[in-house]
Amino acid sequence: MRPSGRQPDELRKVSLEPGFSAHAEGSCLVKFGNTHVLCIATIEEKVPSFLRNSGKGWVTAEYGMLPRSTHTRTAREAARGKQSGRTLEIQRLIGRSLRAVTDLELLGERQVIVDCDVLQADGGTRTASITGGYIALHQALQTLVAKGELPSLPLREQVAAVSCGLFDGQAVLDLDYAEDSRAGADANFVMSSSGGIVETQITAEDVPVTAAEVEALTRLASLGIAELVRAQAAAIEGF
Amino acid sequence: MRPSGRQPDELRKVSLEPGFSAHAEGSCLVKFGNTHVLCIATIEEKVPSFLRNSGKGWVTAEYGMLPRSTHTRTAREAARGKQSGRTLEIQRLIGRSLRAVTDLELLGERQVIVDCDVLQADGGTRTASITGGYIALHQALQTLVAKGELPSLPLREQVAAVSCGLFDGQAVLDLDYAEDSRAGADANFVMSSSGGIVETQITAEDVPVTAAEVEALTRLASLGIAELVRAQAAAIEGF
Amino acid sequence: MRPSGRQPDELRKVSLEPGFSAHAEGSCLVKFGNTHVLCIATIEEKVPSFLRNSGKGWVTAEYGMLPRSTHTRTAREAARGKQSGRTLEIQRLIGRSLRAVTDLELLGERQVIVDCDVLQADGGTRTASITGGYIALHQALQTLVAKGELPSLPLREQVAAVSCGLFDGQAVLDLDYAEDSRAGADANFVMSSSGGIVETQITAEDVPVTAAEVEALTRLASLGIAELVRAQAAAIEGF
Amino acid sequence: MRPSGRQPDELRKVSLEPGFSAHAEGSCLVKFGNTHVLCIATIEEKVPSFLRNSGKGWVTAEYGMLPRSTHTRTAREAARGKQSGRTLEIQRLIGRSLRAVTDLELLGERQVIVDCDVLQADGGTRTASITGGYIALHQALQTLVAKGELPSLPLREQVAAVSCGLFDGQAVLDLDYAEDSRAGADANFVMSSSGGIVETQITAEDVPVTAAEVEALTRLASLGIAELVRAQAAAIEGF
Amino acid sequence: MRPSGRQPDELRKVSLEPGFSAHAEGSCLVKFGNTHVLCIATIEEKVPSFLRNSGKGWVTAEYGMLPRSTHTRTAREAARGKQSGRTLEIQRLIGRSLRAVTDLELLGERQVIVDCDVLQADGGTRTASITGGYIALHQALQTLVAKGELPSLPLREQVAAVSCGLFDGQAVLDLDYAEDSRAGADANFVMSSSGGIVETQITAEDVPVTAAEVEALTRLASLGIAELVRAQAAAIEGF
Amino acid sequence: MRPSGRQPDELRKVSLEPGFSAHAEGSCLVKFGNTHVLCIATIEEKVPSFLRNSGKGWVTAEYGMLPRSTHTRTAREAARGKQSGRTLEIQRLIGRSLRAVTDLELLGERQVIVDCDVLQADGGTRTASITGGYIALHQALQTLVAKGELPSLPLREQVAAVSCGLFDGQAVLDLDYAEDSRAGADANFVMSSSGGIVETQITAEDVPVTAAEVEALTRLASLGIAELVRAQAAAIEGF
Repeated sequence: MRPSGRQPDELRKVSLEPGFSAHAEGSCLVKFGNTHVLCIATIEEKVPSFLRNSGKGWVTAEYGMLPRSTHTRTAREAARGKQSGRTLEIQRLIGRSLRAVTDLELLGERQVIVDCDVLQADGGTRTASITGGYIALHQALQTLVAKGELPSLPLREQVAAVSCGLFDGQAVLDLDYAEDSRAGADANFVMSSSGGIVETQITAEDVPVTAAEVEALTRLASLGIAELVRAQAAAIEGF
Repeated sequence: MRPSGRQPDELRKVSLEPGFSAHAEGSCLVKFGNTHVLCIATIEEKVPSFLRNSGKGWVTAEYGMLPRSTHTRTAREAARGKQSGRTLEIQRLIGRSLRAVTDLELLGERQVIVDCDVLQADGGTRTASITGGYIALHQALQTLVAKGELPSLPLREQVAAVSCGLFDGQAVLDLDYAEDSRAGADANFVMSSSGGIVETQITAEDVPVTAAEVEALTRLASLGIAELVRAQAAAIEGF
Repeated sequence: MRPSGRQPDELRKVSLEPGFSAHAEGSCLVKFGNTHVLCIATIEEKVPSFLRNSGKGWVTAEYGMLPRSTHTRTAREAARGKQSGRTLEIQRLIGRSLRAVTDLELLGERQVIVDCDVLQADGGTRTASITGGYIALHQALQTLVAKGELPSLPLREQVAAVSCGLFDGQAVLDLDYAEDSRAGADANFVMSSSGGIVETQITAEDVPVTAAEVEALTRLASLGIAELVRAQAAAIEGF
Repeated sequence: MRPSGRQPDELRKVSLEPGFSAHAEGSCLVKFGNTHVLCIATIEEKVPSFLRNSGKGWVTAEYGMLPRSTHTRTAREAARGKQSGRTLEIQRLIGRSLRAVTDLELLGERQVIVDCDVLQADGGTRTASITGGYIALHQALQTLVAKGELPSLPLREQVAAVSCGLFDGQAVLDLDYAEDSRAGADANFVMSSSGGIVETQITAEDVPVTAAEVEALTRLASLGIAELVRAQAAAIEGF
Repeated sequence: MRPSGRQPDELRKVSLEPGFSAHAEGSCLVKFGNTHVLCIATIEEKVPSFLRNSGKGWVTAEYGMLPRSTHTRTAREAARGKQSGRTLEIQRLIGRSLRAVTDLELLGERQVIVDCDVLQADGGTRTASITGGYIALHQALQTLVAKGELPSLPLREQVAAVSCGLFDGQAVLDLDYAEDSRAGADANFVMSSSGGIVETQITAEDVPVTAAEVEALTRLASLGIAELVRAQAAAIEGF
Repeated sequence: MRPSGRQPDELRKVSLEPGFSAHAEGSCLVKFGNTHVLCIATIEEKVPSFLRNSGKGWVTAEYGMLPRSTHTRTAREAARGKQSGRTLEIQRLIGRSLRAVTDLELLGERQVIVDCDVLQADGGTRTASITGGYIALHQALQTLVAKGELPSLPLREQVAAVSCGLFDGQAVLDLDYAEDSRAGADANFVMSSSGGIVETQITAEDVPVTAAEVEALTRLASLGIAELVRAQAAAIEGF
C-alpha cells in the first residue's frame, strides 16, 4: 500500500486556476495535492542575443522555492547569492518542455518567461510546474492573439508532466514527498497531448532498474498525463 | 479625490489568513487590497553567533518579491546573485518591528525567522509584511507554548504598520501603487497596539514637508493602525 | 548627564573642509567630533539608463567605512564581496537627501556621484555624510557654473542632517557612539535650510516612543540643523 | 549515412589511460574519438556534514571544460564567478552514476571526489566522464585496499555511459558534435555491467519521440555500454 | 628633465604621521607628494587556520583605493563585488614585505592586519603603503610590549619601499603618476634598513631593459630607501 | 646537492608540443619536468573597449589549475566563485610578457587570448606558461598570416621565462616544487630572445638577499632562457 492510500495509477487531486495574477499576461496556480506552484508568464518584446534578427522567439522558465515551502526551512537563494544546481536543472527542464510544443517561428521575435514559484512543496514540483506553466503560457499567448499581434496561437499541442516511481517494487504514479523519499526509482515524464515523449529522466536510487520496469513506468505515466491534459483543456476552456 | 475612490482615512480591504502553510510553525496570507504577502514563521533551535550562550533569543525577517508580482517583471534576485538595497532595507525594518514587541529573554535561545514573500504587489508591501508577519510570529510562538516549551507567549503587545502620504496636499491613509507614485510624501508608520511608535520613516518626494504635515500623517496612521490591530486580534482569535 | 558632558541641545565640534581632494570636482572633509567622513563629488557626463534622453540629471551617493574606522575592525566589504544592508540603506538615504534640494532639470543630463567614506567613526556617520556631502556637491556644481556649462547653480537650498535620541528619558542632540549605544530611541533628521523636513527616521529601541517624545526630538533636530546650515554657509563662503 | 561515416551501432575509437596523473590516488585520460576528458579521483578523510558520524562514505564529482576545449571559446567559469546550469547538471549526473555502483557503507567515512575536466570536446563529454571516472574511482579505491585501509573494493559492479540519438529518423550510437547538433533526439544512458539501468535522460529536439523510438535507443545503448564495460575491464587489468 | 622638475635621485616630499587613528592599535598617514595613504594596524588574538596551534603569528595586509582617489573615478570594489587583480597583487606584496622583517615566532599566536587605504593617488601607492605600513605595524607591536604582552618588539629591522623607472632613458627615483605613465620601465624595490633586498619587481614597458639598466635602477632605489628608513626612524622616535 | 640531483644550472627536461588542440588557432602542451601546462590561443575579432577604434590589437592570458594538478586537491575556482589573488597575478604576468614581444599595431584590431591550464603542477607553472604560451601565440598568428589576414607575423622576437632560487645559499635554475618550498629566495625571470629583460620578480623568503645574489640569479636565468629560446625555435620549425 502507498503511504497516501492511493491506487498505483491514481493521481493526487489536481487543481488548475488560470488568471491567478492581477498583473501578468498569463498565470496559473497549480496544485498537485499539497504541492502548490504559482506559474506566471511574462511577455517581453525582446529575445536573447543569440536570436536577435532571426525572426524567431523564445520561451524560457525560472524556478524558485519559498524558503519554508519545504518541511524544514531552506536558505533563500537570493540571500545565498546563487541558485542551486537543482534549481537550474529544473528550470532548464521546464523551459525545454514548453519550447517543445511552441512554434518559435510563429511566435516572432519576442520572449515568454514563465516563472514557477513553489509556495508549498510535497513532491513533484517540477511536474506541477510544467503542467501549470503550460496554462500560463497559453493564457499569455492568447492575449497576443486577442490583441491582433499574432494571427493564431503558436502552440502545436499541449504539454504536461508527471512523476512515477517504484514503491516496494511496484510502479506507482505521481509520488508525494513521503513516497518519493522511499521510492526505488525516480522518474519524470514530460509528454505532449498526442502522446509523444518530450523528455524522460529516470534515476535508479539503490539498485539499477530493468528495461521491463522502465516500460511499466512509462505506461503509467502515459495514463497520468492523459488525465492531466484533460484537466488542462477544461481549465483553459473554463477561463 | 484619490484614484482608488477611498476616503482619506480609509484602509484598503484587509484580509488576514493565519495557518496558510501546511509545513510551517506559523503563517499568514495577508492582503491589503491587491497587495498579497505570504508571511511564514520558522522556529530554529539556534541563535546568531553574537547571542550564543546569552540565554536570549532572536527574531529576524527575510523579504522577497516574486519576479512578476509587480506591474512589469523584475529580475529574480536569486538569479542576479544579490539582494537589492531596497530588499535589505525592508527586511531589516520588518525584523526590528517584530523584535520591538518580543520579549527576547523569555523567548530563550532560539530564533524565529519570518519570511515575507510578496505574491502580488500594489503598494504597501512592507506594511502588509509587518502586519501579517506579526500573526505568523504569534502562531509560531503559540505552538511553543502549546508544547510546553515556553511558559507563556513572549510577546508584550501587537505590532502593525501602515503607510500614509500627501496626495494633492492632503494626508491620506494606506496608499496603493497608483497613489504612491504620485504622492508628495511617503511615510511608513509602525506602531504597537498600545499606540506607541515603534518606527517612522518619512520621505519628502519633491518639496520638503512641514511639521504640521508630519503631525497630520501621524494622526492618520494612528487611526489606521488601531483598525489593523483589531483585525489582527480577530484573526488570531478566529484561528 | 550625557557621557560626553555636552548639554542636551549641544552639537559636537563641527568642522567642514571643502576642497580636500586634489583630483575631484568637489570634496569636503567633515568632522562631527571624532566622526570623520571624506565626501568627494564626481561629475559624469552620462546618466543612469532610466534617465537617458530625458534631459534630466541625477545625484547619487556611495558610502563606505574603512575597516578600522570602528572600535573593532570590520571586514572589508570589497573582500567579502558584497555591501551590507546597512551600507546600502545609508547610501540610499544620502542620495535621496541630496536630490531633494537639487533641480535635476536644470542640472541637465549629467550625474553627480558623491562618495562618502568614513575615515573614523564615532556615531552619526550618515548625518555627517549628508552635511558634508552637500558641500562637496555644491563645490562640484560651482565648477560647472564657473566653466559656463550651467547658467546657475541647480540647488534650491541647503540640506543638512543630525541625529537625536532619548538618553535617560531626555531628548539629546547629535549622539556619539557611547550615547547612541545606550539611547532609548534613535532618530535621524534631514532638513533643508528653510526648515522643511526632507526625511525622518525614528526607531524605538526597547519600548515604543510617544508622540510627545517624537515632537521633542524634532524640535531639537531643528535647532541642530539650523546651526549646521550656518556652518555650511560659512564653509562655502570661505572657500 | 552518419557524418562520421560510422555504422549506426558503432562507437567512436575509445581509449582509456589509467594512472595519467602523478599526484592523484586515481586518474584516467578517457578519449571517445576527439572528446578527451581527464578524470582524477581524490580521497579525502572527511565527509559532507550530512554524513558525519554516520559511518557511511560519499562519492561526488566536479566537471569543467577548458575554455577552448570547444569549437569557439567559452568564457572561463572561474572568471565569470559561477558555474553554468549545464555544468552543475552534468556533475550531479556523474556523481549519482558513480554512487550507484559504490557500497557507501563499506567505503566508510571518507569521500572520493572525481574531477572530470574536458581537455577537448566533440560531443559526449558527460558519458566519457562517467566511463573514465569509474576507472579513476576504481584506481583510487584500489590504493586504499592495497594499503589495508579497506578489506575489499567497495564497488558492486562497473558503470559506464553512452549517448544515442535519432539521426535522419534512425537510432545511432555515440554521437559526435556534428551528429548531435543535427539529431532529432538526444539520449544519455548510464548502465551497470550487469545491464541494469542507472539513469536515462531522453530529450526530444523538435518533435516528440515515440515509445518505439525510445526502445530502439535503449537497445542500442545496451550494446554500446557492453563494449565500454569490456574496455574498462581491460584497462583496469592492464594497469 | 622630469615633469616634476625633480633631480633623478630626488624623492618627493615625504611625510609620516603616526597615531592618526583614534581607535586602532597602530596607524600612520603617509604622504609621498600627492599620494596619501592611511595605514592602520589591527591586532587580533587569533591566526589563520594554517597557523593554529603552531605558536607562530602572522602579519597580513589589505589594500583599497577610495573611488575618487584617482584622476577619474574608479568603480567601488565593494559595489562591484570583487577586488581587482591589481588590488590583490598589491596587498599580497605589502603583506610579504612586512612579514619579511617580523619575527613571527616571537609575535606568538596573534595576527596583525595592516589596512592601507589610498585617500589620494599620484603614483607609488604600493611603496607608500609599505613604508607607512611599517610605522603602523611598529606602533601596534609597541602597544603589546608596553602592556607586557610581548617581552620585546618582534621586528628584526625596518622595511621601506620605493619605485624607480627609466624616463627618457635615464633612471629616476620615486615616480609620480605623470612620470610613471610615460616611463620605459616600472620598478618597485622593497629593502630592509640593513640594505638587503626583500622584493624587486621590474617590468619593461615597451622594449626589454638591459642588465645595466637594472643595476642603475637598483642603485637609485638603495639611495631612496636609505632616506625613507631615516624618515621612518625619525617618525617613530618623535611619536 | 639539489633534491632533484640536477646541476645548479640544469633545466628540467623540457618538452614543447605545438598543435595539441584540434579546435584552436594555436596550442602547445609544455612540460618542464613534471609540470605540464596546456596553452591554447584563441583569436577574437574584437578588442577590449579601451582599444575600440584605435587600430591596435591586444594579447591577454587566463590561467587556471585543475583541482588535483597539485599534491593535495585545491578547491575549484569556478565552484568557489572567484579566482585567487595568485591566479590573477600569474595571468597578468603572462599577458604582459606576451604583449612585450608583440607588435600590437601590426596585429590590428583583434585580440588573442592565451589560456594556460595546468594539468599537473610541480613548480614553475608560470614560467612554463609563458614559454609554452609564446608557441601557442606564434601558431595562432601564423594562421592569420597564412590566410592573408596579416602581411607578416606581428612578433618582434621570442619570449621565454624561467625561475631561479637560492638553495642552501647557492643559485640554482628552474626549481621544482620540492626545491621551491625550501628555497631562500624565489625569482622569476622573463626575457626576450635577444637577451633583454621583460620582467623580473625576486622575493626573499626568510632573510633579505644581497645585490650579488641577485646578480648571480640573473646570470643563471640568462643561460636557462637561452636554452628555452632554442627549444622554442626548434618546436616552431618542426611543426
